[in-house]
Order: sequence, then structure tokens, then C-alpha cells
Amino acid sequence: MSGESDLIRALRRVATDPAARGLADDAAVLDWGGKRMVLTHDMLVESVHFLPQDPPESVAWKLVAVNVSDLAAKGARPVAALMGYGLTGDTAWDAAFVRGLSVALDHFGVPLLGGDTVQTPTRVLGLTLIGEASGPVPDRRGATVGDAVFVTGHLGDAALGLRLLQSGLDEPVELIEAYRTPRPQCEAGLEIASFAPAVMDVSDGLLIDAQRMAEASGVALRIDLDAVPLSPAFVAHRGSDLAARLFAATGGDDYQLLFVSSRPLPALPCPVTRIGQVVRGSGLMLHDSNGNVTLPDRLGWEHGSG
Amino acid sequence: MSGESDLIRALRRVATDPAARGLADDAAVLDWGGKRMVLTHDMLVESVHFLPQDPPESVAWKLVAVNVSDLAAKGARPVAALMGYGLTGDTAWDAAFVRGLSVALDHFGVPLLGGDTVQTPTRVLGLTLIGEASGPVPDRRGATVGDAVFVTGHLGDAALGLRLLQSGLDEPVELIEAYRTPRPQCEAGLEIASFAPAVMDVSDGLLIDAQRMAEASGVALRIDLDAVPLSPAFVAHRGSDLAARLFAATGGDDYQLLFVSSRPLPALPCPVTRIGQVVRGSGLMLHDSNGNVTLPDRLGWEHGSG
Repeated sequence: MSGESDLIRALRRVATDPAARGLADDAAVLDWGGKRMVLTHDMLVESVHFLPQDPPESVAWKLVAVNVSDLAAKGARPVAALMGYGLTGDTAWDAAFVRGLSVALDHFGVPLLGGDTVQTPTRVLGLTLIGEASGPVPDRRGATVGDAVFVTGHLGDAALGLRLLQSGLDEPVELIEAYRTPRPQCEAGLEIASFAPAVMDVSDGLLIDAQRMAEASGVALRIDLDAVPLSPAFVAHRGSDLAARLFAATGGDDYQLLFVSSRPLPALPCPVTRIGQVVRGSGLMLHDSNGNVTLPDRLGWEHGSG
Repeated sequence: MSGESDLIRALRRVATDPAARGLADDAAVLDWGGKRMVLTHDMLVESVHFLPQDPPESVAWKLVAVNVSDLAAKGARPVAALMGYGLTGDTAWDAAFVRGLSVALDHFGVPLLGGDTVQTPTRVLGLTLIGEASGPVPDRRGATVGDAVFVTGHLGDAALGLRLLQSGLDEPVELIEAYRTPRPQCEAGLEIASFAPAVMDVSDGLLIDAQRMAEASGVALRIDLDAVPLSPAFVAHRGSDLAARLFAATGGDDYQLLFVSSRPLPALPCPVTRIGQVVRGSGLMLHDSNGNVTLPDRLGWEHGSG
């Protein structure tokens, strides 16, 4: 993993344009003809980001959804997509993938405009999304001491779904689907962007993503693990003790929105839970009703970003 | 390869927005914010698009150059790039790549704004370029009976360079460099776009690309193989007989511009050669001073496009 950190550090020295936001945000933001263009590119690699046995339709959905989630975190609607597709010679897989892609593009209102297809030994997929923000474009740097910290939806369902699949199980379906066909918070993202000074999507795990927001903002985030929102299906399978909550908070693939606000929230089109507070200091502090909780060694997935 | 054709055919049914140009052009063209945005995404895969022993700096150059070439064919200047990078664990390679990337981005005036890094077993690289066209954006569909057919620069140098490398040779340097660090016709592209009704870049081989232009335009292109422009280095190594000319016309990786015009050309900032004529019919017709030449079985590389 240090290879990846070194690479990103080196790329930051190259990506000096302010629109790149230091490669430290979910997306780049470029002023274009009086409009605000939001750009993101995320890749999926077989056996890294999805399982070989995942239905191709769901892999296509995930490819679109993870990129749409980056736009949602910036309050942007998609206007164009370009896809990079690595062909491995499995034509039935390809055909099913395109069927799923068509469904996902329709669902999220994304026009596919172009891309590239290449022969690859391993299945590698990339999607570039261009979005348009009609209002302010929050980044990760805006959290201020005193703000409350919120998260949308439930956490941990996707990570538990992956765990079940890895154990050879394929139910309960809510958890499997949370892993395979994530539902990014598009509509909520547009509203949250209008008032929240810092927003990002939770893709690598709540704790690692909260730590990134804290670092970017030069503050500390104090998270109440008791408040981490768990779904009934999650609790039925994994319980809700400290270990279960740490699993949910470090699991990743949630595609929920993490944001801060200093004021009471307006009504939002999805469940929102207050999970903590922005405080003086740096990094992350955890607690529950029994007191402070030591940070786990692993806070989430150490993917790249930008 | 039929898997790739099937996939592209299926994707065409999904990419129905006019901005996608039927996935049959070098780039997508989107009117947005009162400006014309040109979008392209090309990928490079090790052992497919570059050799494992190619210097990483040159692979970075090629990644930028092949995308810049697509913009050049549409008369667009680059304004933003997003990169997808597959890490294979070779940190020295990564560091050298970023050095080369920095040089290439500076050379072509491309701001890197974001992207993604992933772990991959095989080295796979993708680049999305967003460009802005200040004038008309020619596509491949504009060739009309009576137009003359032109190509910029020389053809075949890169293909011969690859052949030499595959034989364990690494000179002459002009041919090796033509393969490793192609020089897309950026400035010429801006001028050619202002008058040419059909333009595309020659990336997969003159003949296959000319055939694509003929098909897109509903005409035939009659190419004079004697006119195919060969460099002194090419001729010194490979000669200039019919076999050599067919090699040059089917080799690929040229990143020159193929275009048509019905009027005399203005002065252009690169050598330009008239190589044929748009005629009635369909597909490609070849001739030289000895008469008609049968189409070779293989016209070039059957990559994807769009």
C-alpha cells in the first residue's frame, strides 16, 4: 500500500491546478462557460472491487453507482459518461454487462458518450462522469470546530453482504444487494450540498473517510459509535455490540454521505443520523456509552481517490 | 475480436445521445455552457499497447499523446485530464511514470485534475481528456465524392519501430521514438478542423482508418499507395516497394491526421501529402503506378474506438 501512497503523493505534485483540489476530494471541480463542471473517474477491478461470481449486470450497476456517488457528494447531476472496458473474451459476460449498464445509466440519468475497449487478462472497468453543479460544491476541507457530523442511511450492510458472499452465502438479499447494487444518495446530495460546508461519500469505510475529512479540514472528528446507523438486517445477522459497530464503521462500500453542519438540518429525502462532533485537534476520536474507544488498526480500505 | 465488435454494437444501442456520435468518432462532442466540449478516453494495456521493456516515461507520454491526438482530430485544445492507474507493485516504475507524465502534461498543456488508482495484476492505464473546440468539430461522416484525401506527416515509422523492438533492436532512434513517444498533430489539427469536412486520427493503420471514414461517410476512398508518405529512416530500413508501403499503411500507432478537402489547402504547420480521392461506392480501393492493388487481409489494428 505504501506504493499507492507514494504514487498519490507524486501525482499531487503534478496536479497543481486548483480544480484538482489537491487530489484530496471525491471529484475535481472546473468552471466552464459560467457553469460548474464536476469530474470523477473510478475504476473497478475483478477480485478487488467485485467478485468473479457477481452478476455482470450488478458490476455494471456498481460501476455507474460509485461514480454517481462522487457526484452526489458534490451536489452535481451527471451530464456525460465515458467508459473504459477491458475485454477478457467472455462474450456472455460482456452482453449481460451491457444490459446492466443500460439499466443503470437510465436509472441515474447518465448519457454514455464514448470510451474505449481493450483486451485485458483481468477484467478492469473505468468510468468517467462529468456532472453539473447548480449550486455550491462542498469539499472535504470545510469542517469547523463545533459542527455536528451526520451520515445518511445505514452503514455496514455492503461489507456484511461481501462477508456473506465470501462465506458462500447469498442471503439475506438486502445485505447482498447492498454490496452488489449500492444506492448512492443522489437527491439528498443535491440538498446537502446547498447547506453543508463539508461533504464526502463514504466509500472506503466511515472511519477512514471521516479521518480524511478531519485531515483535510485541519480539525478532529469525534464519532459516537453507538450512533452509527445499522439496518435491521445488519443487526439481525451481526448484532449491534462494539465489534459489530466497528465492523460497520470500517467496512466500506456504503456510498452514503458524510457531512457536517452547524445548524439544524432541513428535511432530507433519506434517513440522516447525527454521529458526532467536530472538535479541536487532529484525526479521529471514538467513543460509546462506556467511554473512549481505541482506534482500530484498520480504519477502512486504502484505495486511491480523487 | 468478434467479442469486441459485438460489445461495441451493443454499446451503440445504449449510447443514443447525439453527442456520442454513434461511438463512431474519435471523441464525443457535447454543447454545454455555450461552449463545445470534446471528450475522449483511451486506455493502454501492457503487452497490448506498449512493451514491458518500454521506459515508463515513454508509456506516460504515449498515454497523454494518444488522447491528445483524438482531440487534435476534432480541432480541440485540452482543458482537463483524469487518469486511471493500475498499480502492480513496482514503485520504481510508478515513480518514473509520474516523471514522464509530468513532462507530457506540460508539453501538451494538459492540467491533471483527478482520477483513480487501483491494484491490478496487469498494468492498465486510462486517460480521459476534456477539450474545448473554438470552431467547427469535424467528424468522420463528412467526406463527399470529389474531395481529395490527405494525411499529415509520415506513416509507418511507429510500426517499424515496434517491429525493431520486437526483434531485440533499439535503433534507429527515430523509428523507436516514433513508436514510444508519438507526436500528435495538435497545431495542425486546430487549423485543419477549420476547413476540412472530415478528419480523424490515424491510430490503427491508414487503411483501416480510411475504411472507417469511407463507411461513416457513405462513400469510397481510393488511395494511391505510391503517395503514402514514408520517412527517410523508414525507407532506409524497409525500402519503399509495394510490401513496404502496405506495411506502412496498415501498421498503426502513427497519430497523424487523415482528412479530406474539396479546395486547395492553406499553409499548414506540418508536411501534408495528398494520398487519394473520395469516389462513389463503398469501402476502400487501392492502386499504385502499376494499377489496382488488392486489399490486404488485414487493414490495421481492430481496437475499439469512441
